[in-house]
Amino acid sequence: MTQGFAAPDMRRVDDVLSRYRQPVLDGMRAALDRPGVEHVRYMRYHLGFEDADGRPAGTTGGKMLRPAIVLLACEAVGGDAARAMSAAVAIELLHNFSLIHDDIEDKSQTRHGRPTLWTIAGTEQAINAGDGLFVIAQRTLLELADAGVPADRVLAASRMLNDACIALCEGQYADLGFEQRERVSQQEYEAMIAGKTAALLGAAAGIGAIAGGADDVTVAALAMCGIRLGMAFQVQDDVLGIWGEASETGKSASDDIRSRKKSFPVVFAFDHLEGGARDALARIYASPASPDADVTDVLALLDSVRARQAATSNAEQWAAQAIDTLRPLELNPDRREDLEALASFFVHRRS
Amino acid sequence: MTQGFAAPDMRRVDDVLSRYRQPVLDGMRAALDRPGVEHVRYMRYHLGFEDADGRPAGTTGGKMLRPAIVLLACEAVGGDAARAMSAAVAIELLHNFSLIHDDIEDKSQTRHGRPTLWTIAGTEQAINAGDGLFVIAQRTLLELADAGVPADRVLAASRMLNDACIALCEGQYADLGFEQRERVSQQEYEAMIAGKTAALLGAAAGIGAIAGGADDVTVAALAMCGIRLGMAFQVQDDVLGIWGEASETGKSASDDIRSRKKSFPVVFAFDHLEGGARDALARIYASPASPDADVTDVLALLDSVRARQAATSNAEQWAAQAIDTLRPLELNPDRREDLEALASFFVHRRS
Repeated sequence: MTQGFAAPDMRRVDDVLSRYRQPVLDGMRAALDRPGVEHVRYMRYHLGFEDADGRPAGTTGGKMLRPAIVLLACEAVGGDAARAMSAAVAIELLHNFSLIHDDIEDKSQTRHGRPTLWTIAGTEQAINAGDGLFVIAQRTLLELADAGVPADRVLAASRMLNDACIALCEGQYADLGFEQRERVSQQEYEAMIAGKTAALLGAAAGIGAIAGGADDVTVAALAMCGIRLGMAFQVQDDVLGIWGEASETGKSASDDIRSRKKSFPVVFAFDHLEGGARDALARIYASPASPDADVTDVLALLDSVRARQAATSNAEQWAAQAIDTLRPLELNPDRREDLEALASFFVHRRS
Repeated sequence: MTQGFAAPDMRRVDDVLSRYRQPVLDGMRAALDRPGVEHVRYMRYHLGFEDADGRPAGTTGGKMLRPAIVLLACEAVGGDAARAMSAAVAIELLHNFSLIHDDIEDKSQTRHGRPTLWTIAGTEQAINAGDGLFVIAQRTLLELADAGVPADRVLAASRMLNDACIALCEGQYADLGFEQRERVSQQEYEAMIAGKTAALLGAAAGIGAIAGGADDVTVAALAMCGIRLGMAFQVQDDVLGIWGEASETGKSASDDIRSRKKSFPVVFAFDHLEGGARDALARIYASPASPDADVTDVLALLDSVRARQAATSNAEQWAAQAIDTLRPLELNPDRREDLEALASFFVHRRS
């Protein structure tokens, strides 16, 4: 499965993710510290800063990949990470706004092992808290100006973020639509994840480069690198949604089969199965209920066309292309290696 | 009821609102014209540009007060309305994003006599379409830069818009919370409408002034004027929600009594009724069902403390203060008169 793509240097990956984690978390807490604004309590709950009764709790369960990419990109182009910190915080907040609304739209009961916000606050307040978090993310991005980023660059960053958000909403529109459809083509699937996942990672890398003072060509290349990283990340996510270990992913094994998600391996199988085998898969995916026997059948059908290998190979191609995008650029060598380690991690991760 | 506050020159009001209407509508259509982005179809439906099947339909049923205030403020400070057009369009789109989500949160079935978006598209797609419209509004505001507004002024406009949106979400949080509570104080009510209604009108006026090139003091004064106009507008809205003519407002008479809304007259009555009369009102507002007999009883209780007169007088005070705010400023005299006519209209309108 890992042919042609080296396993990640996990010490480097851990180092990258832990290097930026605390200042980003501090920035997120500061962004929600708004005296007189009460609905931030729902945001604090969602982020794991507080429990449902407003008592201090652990911290966010996310890997915080997006802010790491913002700050890596900034440093890679020779910028000071402190100048891009507002953008890193903004993008993690924005990602979480989309999770709050996704959880409502998908009727998800838990996230990172905790009850989702809408199950605690009600759908009405959860919609509104998501909106509020989106606003605070937008507002926080503009604080780049307070860290010395010139106004025209802050505007460019805000444009890039909002363009990514349009793609994000379009991806979610497509994903919700897929649930109503029997078949989804590979092309439709790719367009959906390009919006739903890759666009924001692209904006993360591009905005980091903008804040770091890069020229337009370098900004565009880093944004493209981020998009490709996002594609790799999502396809591997699809692999873990079917074959991941529950103990590592925090989700039940085969969750995506039970929920009939049209993820990469399933789309691939529909394209490569023939005759009765394809009819069998179609029959299962046309039925709403999902007994365990179905799961076993689907796994066998996916195996018969080597769907897992196809997905892994696809993720590796995206990651390789992401790294290729950076090749012509003059970047800080350490940060280039960090980005390469992240790319490798994205396709080898088990959670 | 109109003591001390002249009735509006309706020809001037009609002239103001119709002057800006078409270019703003054109700008809204252009903002939604995004090839390859499909979920804008839900926004077009909500705005009345298309019917549920995507066929061209009439046009938005709203009065489009907010964009008129943006453009009036811009011209009042000596700016060219064309420079502020993106902001006018952005604020009307943003207002409509909030209506899409409000309709979901309030379970409203109709708006302007048409089925609300969520009843057509489902809650999931309607949440997402609202998010998308919010993004497009944000993105459109940044196009002020393309009309020649300097980057630092565009940033200031975006900050002001997002600060207003935080207030908007906080107001909605409070309003949703009021539904669960027996009593709401006058102060809590005012804080709620300051967020839910007045903040965006304040941003409209302030951003118009920013785009028009005004200095900080003038921007702040116009923003304050807009906030006070918003307070007047909402209190009169509360009057119409109880005593408005269905044929004029497009809503059923006494709608707000049936829905147990804690609007100005009700909050006032709770503060001014005594003994058994207050208990009677409390009993009715504690019960979820709402027979017509209740409506008659509530109307009698409101009348007994002259709640309608109190609300009208409050709205007039806000409108008078809004006009006072502008007094020290050097403004285009025609546009000052337009703003004064709007202020008067806000408290005398019947729909």
